[in-house]
Amino acid sequence: MFVALRRSLFNNRELNKIYTQFASTNSTTTKTKFGVFSSKTHWNLSYSTTCNMSKTALVILAPGSEEMEFVIAADVLRRAGVKVTVAGLAGVDAVQCSRDVCIVPDTSLDIAKGGLYDAIVLPGGLGGAKAMSESAELGALLKEQEAAGRIVAAICAAPTALLAHGIGSGKNLTSYPSVKDKLVDTYKYVDDQKVVQDGNLITSRGPGTAFDFGLKLAEVLAGADKAKEVAKGMLLA
Amino acid sequence: MFVALRRSLFNNRELNKIYTQFASTNSTTTKTKFGVFSSKTHWNLSYSTTCNMSKTALVILAPGSEEMEFVIAADVLRRAGVKVTVAGLAGVDAVQCSRDVCIVPDTSLDIAKGGLYDAIVLPGGLGGAKAMSESAELGALLKEQEAAGRIVAAICAAPTALLAHGIGSGKNLTSYPSVKDKLVDTYKYVDDQKVVQDGNLITSRGPGTAFDFGLKLAEVLAGADKAKEVAKGMLLA
Repeated sequence: MFVALRRSLFNNRELNKIYTQFASTNSTTTKTKFGVFSSKTHWNLSYSTTCNMSKTALVILAPGSEEMEFVIAADVLRRAGVKVTVAGLAGVDAVQCSRDVCIVPDTSLDIAKGGLYDAIVLPGGLGGAKAMSESAELGALLKEQEAAGRIVAAICAAPTALLAHGIGSGKNLTSYPSVKDKLVDTYKYVDDQKVVQDGNLITSRGPGTAFDFGLKLAEVLAGADKAKEVAKGMLLA
Repeated sequence: MFVALRRSLFNNRELNKIYTQFASTNSTTTKTKFGVFSSKTHWNLSYSTTCNMSKTALVILAPGSEEMEFVIAADVLRRAGVKVTVAGLAGVDAVQCSRDVCIVPDTSLDIAKGGLYDAIVLPGGLGGAKAMSESAELGALLKEQEAAGRIVAAICAAPTALLAHGIGSGKNLTSYPSVKDKLVDTYKYVDDQKVVQDGNLITSRGPGTAFDFGLKLAEVLAGADKAKEVAKGMLLA
């Protein structure tokens, strides 16, 4: 029943409204890898979680996000078998990205924040990074993610959102070169690598490194063999 | 007035309905680089076309299109200053791509086909290529594009749509390797290049060559210097 409900939710975004009502009318909630549910459904969910070994990723989509960085991360992870949820920072409506491509999120951050995710991924784009920096809701989720030792990943200008929310301070990190100056005092800035991993913090530099970023996340979440298989299928290996 | 109208159209997709009514209620029409308009507005349009030297591209978005190939082509061309129109093959509604990313087109093919474009670009994805192969409307537009000597471009599985519509027969071409067998009898198939240009036909192989494909189109439409500038901004040069 849970699997069918979840499939319906992600196949038909209109049903998010029903899901929102479902989540909000139950005061006693349980966080799972797939969302917030009432205590009544806890045992069913535990069973679902046990039977489903796929890793999960939450990819944030904000107005002004760089559409290539967003879509490469989401697509590469889905090719690797990771269950990706695309959450609109500002809600469930279509999001206008940095080069005017309009993308419809799977759900809103407000709904998605109730779930647990193996990785939270922030695409770049100056406008998107600014919006993510200003979101207290995202900041709280990132702090919870970091405290639990789960993966936080950001590319291009998005590491400035990590800075804004105090995530990963003191760690090795990279970004789009134009925002380096903002980051050098708080992080050990790395200039010469396409992707930098320091524990559970994974960062990258721009559209031209987005495939490397997606494949590093695929490797960490789904294993090196799966990442190689995905790279081969995309004609990158 | 025309420029303002066009800007509004592309800033607010809802206004496509008004545009559709506008186009359909005028029986005498003039094809321009920006759409179909009545003879009454012809002189205004000629003036607009003369004053605006930007090249134009129509990027087709079909159910099952590969979202990375689509978005990289559209984004790279917009970075190069090319005026990109994203046309939904099946209408103006959001399109579910091959890895479940949902993208809202700027307009429908039915509306966009009235315009003239310096390039028509077909992203890959097996489902998207099949839908494009079966579209008589797209076939007619591609034939017109080829006959006028303007650019036709396709990546990954989309060259099979060129085959279906009899475009570029006998020319050098490449594609995603898995569809090579369908193409070798009609085209001079090229295995060892990321992008193949033969006159006004430009083809490429898959997600891993999508940046090369976008940058080749940028070079052809906006010049080598602009393409290099775009590549540098994306950290690809």
